[in-house]
Amino acid sequence: IEREDAALIYERLADWHSADMADLIEQLKPKLRLPFLQIMGERVDPDVYSDLDENVREHLVDDMEPAEIAAFLNELELDDAVDVLESFEEDEQREVLKEIPADERVVLQEGLSYGEDSAGRLMQRNLIAVPEYWDIGQTIDYMRDTDDLPDEFYEIFVVDPRHHPIGTLSLNRAMRSKRQVLVRDIMDTEQKLIPVDMDQEEVAYLFQQYRLASAAVVNEDGALIGVITVDDIVDVISEEAEEDILRLGGVSEDDLFGSVMSTTRARFLWLFVNLLTAIAASVAIGLFDATMEAIIALAVLMPIVASMGGNAGTQTLTVAVRALATKELTAGNMLRILSKETMVAFLNGSIFAVLIGIVAWLWFSSLNIGLIIALAMIVNIIVAAVAGMIVPVTLDRMKIDPAIASSVFVTTVTDIVGFVAFLGLATIVLL
Amino acid sequence: IEREDAALIYERLADWHSADMADLIEQLKPKLRLPFLQIMGERVDPDVYSDLDENVREHLVDDMEPAEIAAFLNELELDDAVDVLESFEEDEQREVLKEIPADERVVLQEGLSYGEDSAGRLMQRNLIAVPEYWDIGQTIDYMRDTDDLPDEFYEIFVVDPRHHPIGTLSLNRAMRSKRQVLVRDIMDTEQKLIPVDMDQEEVAYLFQQYRLASAAVVNEDGALIGVITVDDIVDVISEEAEEDILRLGGVSEDDLFGSVMSTTRARFLWLFVNLLTAIAASVAIGLFDATMEAIIALAVLMPIVASMGGNAGTQTLTVAVRALATKELTAGNMLRILSKETMVAFLNGSIFAVLIGIVAWLWFSSLNIGLIIALAMIVNIIVAAVAGMIVPVTLDRMKIDPAIASSVFVTTVTDIVGFVAFLGLATIVLL
Repeated sequence: IEREDAALIYERLADWHSADMADLIEQLKPKLRLPFLQIMGERVDPDVYSDLDENVREHLVDDMEPAEIAAFLNELELDDAVDVLESFEEDEQREVLKEIPADERVVLQEGLSYGEDSAGRLMQRNLIAVPEYWDIGQTIDYMRDTDDLPDEFYEIFVVDPRHHPIGTLSLNRAMRSKRQVLVRDIMDTEQKLIPVDMDQEEVAYLFQQYRLASAAVVNEDGALIGVITVDDIVDVISEEAEEDILRLGGVSEDDLFGSVMSTTRARFLWLFVNLLTAIAASVAIGLFDATMEAIIALAVLMPIVASMGGNAGTQTLTVAVRALATKELTAGNMLRILSKETMVAFLNGSIFAVLIGIVAWLWFSSLNIGLIIALAMIVNIIVAAVAGMIVPVTLDRMKIDPAIASSVFVTTVTDIVGFVAFLGLATIVLL
Repeated sequence: IEREDAALIYERLADWHSADMADLIEQLKPKLRLPFLQIMGERVDPDVYSDLDENVREHLVDDMEPAEIAAFLNELELDDAVDVLESFEEDEQREVLKEIPADERVVLQEGLSYGEDSAGRLMQRNLIAVPEYWDIGQTIDYMRDTDDLPDEFYEIFVVDPRHHPIGTLSLNRAMRSKRQVLVRDIMDTEQKLIPVDMDQEEVAYLFQQYRLASAAVVNEDGALIGVITVDDIVDVISEEAEEDILRLGGVSEDDLFGSVMSTTRARFLWLFVNLLTAIAASVAIGLFDATMEAIIALAVLMPIVASMGGNAGTQTLTVAVRALATKELTAGNMLRILSKETMVAFLNGSIFAVLIGIVAWLWFSSLNIGLIIALAMIVNIIVAAVAGMIVPVTLDRMKIDPAIASSVFVTTVTDIVGFVAFLGLATIVLL
């Protein structure tokens, strides 16, 4: 579509924001993406590349020369550059790094050395640190004389002679003080320090819990080595929430822009596990084939019991998974909340038992079938609530992300309990 | 537990952060919460109340006098105070407002007048606005002379004589400039303005997309009336993601700390809808009761087809719901992604068709049953992918949140198609 009017496109998109440009590129057909970038040429803000979806970026950069890539990386902020670099294979990484000036290369390599989701990856190394005995005038003069300052920052860090952070000074407080005021006298000594290897989920939790705008990152010796600002955290929070949503839905990672093959592979595992559990449920049903053959109504009704249990279990487990992620569900209130969930399940279970009991009774003109399905329903909804609570809590204690595996376990339990309770009761009562 | 050692508790918790204190209160048994607060007395930071879960807060404040509540509200930041106030019934609200000084009352009432999830609710009214013809020296002197400044801010707003925003000046740039530099010459004129009635989800999208630290809020006339900072957005992003997660799980809102009755009521609707769809699926099964009576193996195997379809559909719909929320899925790439999902479904469907076909063949020693379940499986997984894509997109176009209702529709489709395809094929082939 967008082949001809190169000049026109060039003109119209010239001052788009990088994030909008990245979105536009994602919307283009894969084949048109590189030609588009070639048309835009020099005018493409390097930030566009860090705003692109990882899948799309990998595709694009595949066709570039290492020197071209190196030039782009040079202009990105450190954390973005490390992200881009990391998406490459190891040998590509080495080739690109070769093209980068030695001092920048060291910084990039150090960035790569931190764990993928650690604080070290999120931080900027550019920051302003001053000794506590300076006054505001010296601080301001120092800032005026330093060229290599970060684009955006909200705090000045105060450090001792060993470069350990001892306080922070917000820009607004600094600006409102006279030049001769000492940093020591107006700095804020309460600060949360972030170890460089802290997991980003933990970092985001600290920022949210204490409403931080920025925080100092320290190495093992407690020395100040970087700063994390809240705008990096915004991305982490969406990422982590997204991860939970996708995992609860049985998708391993965001694969909207992934290729058919990689998406197929990513979703296969989950479906395979589900196949095994579905077969397990069928085996349970198979135990009662004689009962079903005698009374075919049971085969017609049995999915209702399993399905209601599955849904009730999913409700409880969704609340539990979120509450674990936000640290609202702890060992301290676990029992209280479990007993509340059980009460809720008992109430809703009773209501739905009556409803489905009446429907089944009228449908098959059998009071017995109505009573049996009602009883099985209550049992299964209560079991669902207990499993919906215990499974994620147990996985969490075992350091497994409850969002990944909880729903397989819980629906397996509710399927099997649902079928066995219903068909088993029927076998005892009706045969 | 924590009744006796009032003095000890008092001592140990005296300098906890408000957010930690709020968490502690949430962990306490409901009956102990008020006594605990009475022990802590004056030392309770009013911020604790805005950090509390809404359900817990409502309970607590129920037992307070309007004058007490008013005193707390007075010390909260505006957006927090409005949140607290809003959780009351209307007549309580009026009583509390009566106790508040007139000028603050007007501001609170105005806050309440903005829609619940609008930009007006997020914004702070406290901000610094200067005319463009001032120089940095004047700006700094003005800041030093003004007492009623916000605790934290990152930007100074530049306005024209009608108080319309025309640019922003970051604190760090202001600090690094000499006193005689004019604001006009260093201000940044590219800024995103936020209309006061913009939905908070939209506001959060702007902040994320353009990596904003703060943004000006304007009224219908375009005049500057407030500022939203990124730390407020952090909460919005978690809230919105949380909402999606809970809705996908069939829970209307976070009810971890809700009472048994309110939780039961909130979950009832979803389960009721599910009951109706489960009955619809059973009616579909009932059409084939003669077939099942003849070959009971069909009743044993049929949940597998439905369950695999349900899971494949959930995978696609999860990706689609997220992509709609993050605006990655648009009219422009909808068809391309739909055809990709169909391909993925065809591939995975074929693999699982072979697997389950062999299992069923061996289990019931019937090649025909194996072939039938294999065919039904492919059909259902492909239908699942198409429904998993079309249902959320359609709901989104109809301005219904796809996270709420998609999974009911999709699993209903996959249940019914699964049962009908499997039992229908069997009826044609085997009878």
